[in-house]
Amino acid sequence: MTPFERVAVIGVGLIGGSFALALKQARGCKHVVGFGRDPRNLKLALDRGVIDSIAGTIAEAVRGADLVLVATPVAQFPAVFAALSAALSGAALVTDAGSTKRDVVAAARAALGVKLAQFVPAHPIAGAELSGVAAAKADLFRDRKVVLAPLAESAPEAVARVGAAWQACGASVHTMSPEEHDRVFAAVSHLPHLLAYALVHAIAGRDNASQLFGYAAGGFRDFTRIASSHPEMWRDICIANRDALLAELDRYTDELKTLRAMLAANDAAGLEALFRDAREARDRWLRGAFDP
Amino acid sequence: MTPFERVAVIGVGLIGGSFALALKQARGCKHVVGFGRDPRNLKLALDRGVIDSIAGTIAEAVRGADLVLVATPVAQFPAVFAALSAALSGAALVTDAGSTKRDVVAAARAALGVKLAQFVPAHPIAGAELSGVAAAKADLFRDRKVVLAPLAESAPEAVARVGAAWQACGASVHTMSPEEHDRVFAAVSHLPHLLAYALVHAIAGRDNASQLFGYAAGGFRDFTRIASSHPEMWRDICIANRDALLAELDRYTDELKTLRAMLAANDAAGLEALFRDAREARDRWLRGAFDP
Repeated sequence: MTPFERVAVIGVGLIGGSFALALKQARGCKHVVGFGRDPRNLKLALDRGVIDSIAGTIAEAVRGADLVLVATPVAQFPAVFAALSAALSGAALVTDAGSTKRDVVAAARAALGVKLAQFVPAHPIAGAELSGVAAAKADLFRDRKVVLAPLAESAPEAVARVGAAWQACGASVHTMSPEEHDRVFAAVSHLPHLLAYALVHAIAGRDNASQLFGYAAGGFRDFTRIASSHPEMWRDICIANRDALLAELDRYTDELKTLRAMLAANDAAGLEALFRDAREARDRWLRGAFDP
Repeated sequence: MTPFERVAVIGVGLIGGSFALALKQARGCKHVVGFGRDPRNLKLALDRGVIDSIAGTIAEAVRGADLVLVATPVAQFPAVFAALSAALSGAALVTDAGSTKRDVVAAARAALGVKLAQFVPAHPIAGAELSGVAAAKADLFRDRKVVLAPLAESAPEAVARVGAAWQACGASVHTMSPEEHDRVFAAVSHLPHLLAYALVHAIAGRDNASQLFGYAAGGFRDFTRIASSHPEMWRDICIANRDALLAELDRYTDELKTLRAMLAANDAAGLEALFRDAREARDRWLRGAFDP
């Protein structure tokens, strides 16, 4: 891959910072300029060598860049795209790391005009319950998937070059429409986050919360790990993908109704069969049987 | 702790096998005899040095033992107690590793008669999604909690000596009533298992299950880890603790209704506050703020 001369990272957190580190390590860029809301976080990014310079505005970051990564919480995308549009050179590419894609595409359509062809929406399937540049690491995307959700307007060479940049970070690249992307991730990512937050919140509100947490152990820890995720980021994801998430929540509630009826009826055989099916499916998944 | 001469382990799986290994390592017993349903598993336990001999019947295992651990799935406890009662010496102690306690106590009451004073119900808060003696390890209980749920009839010296045996395995010992135990674990253990099984089962049944599993990642893996747990064991736990579990499931369904309403109303601030409260509570828990 021909290295990028100047990469602008808007939002230098876990994802934006890890992208900068990974691309640098792959010698995929010469200079990274960062923009963000939190001056202390940017200073840390500079001190750690994640970025090479700090921009005072989004336009300043984007001016002269040949690749722009937008890695803020998704609710900020309309403002970010509006701020970068005029400063974006005609040769520059834009990608993003938003966990939802229909809203990101809508924001890009509203702001980018003829520069829409330069935008290739992306979602790296990597993350952690940690946030901020302090958690960034060069291998965050290694052996992970990145979903590209190109528009009809995305230039094929832009899609290829953005895909190559994510591959240089260690990821495998897959392609879906924005709509399909949002339906899939509502089911396997957004819903589990909501369910984990709900369980911890419900327990924290109980009169005997201290006792309950006091006896929670390893199963609870893993089940709720994603409830330590970034609240603002997940607020934005839930709102952006609201319709698909509501549909998944309703399906899941139906599943719980089925389970409740089995339990209420002492249907031991039915419960065991359901548990066994789930375990077998999960074990097949762990063995890689469902890789796309 | 004065070592036990002969420990009988009924059900030499992950928990029973780990108890034997841990007690041996602590020089807390001289001989372990094992009984179980699966001859190959018992052979493996013998080959690995987890047990020192195999008994053909429960009575044979229990005869001459001064400590008996019952570590089968809880639905088998009535039959196990009935089989061991007559063979149990008046000086022997009995403990168990069942994840529910009211049903275990009821089974003991029905079968043990005057020997009930020798029984000290216990629940080690340790486990894994793995099962069988192949997964057993001497440090499974190290720095874990064990809940004792003694009966009014349990002899104080029996409670002390059984507690010492679990401590010798590395665990810290806590005490609750069987009823309190079952309510607490319905909330922080049994419900999460049900929720994880439900999510995997629901996804496995979808037309696009392969695609959905194909994009599931680390968050999904941890959230659903406990859905790889032993189906028969969890069937028994759910049935044994049915009423408390139904109550927890109903509370959780109410919490999901609240979340659904917030999402449907685009209540971004409400969602963020709920996510933040959950993250803060979980982070306090991780820091040990709720240790009993």
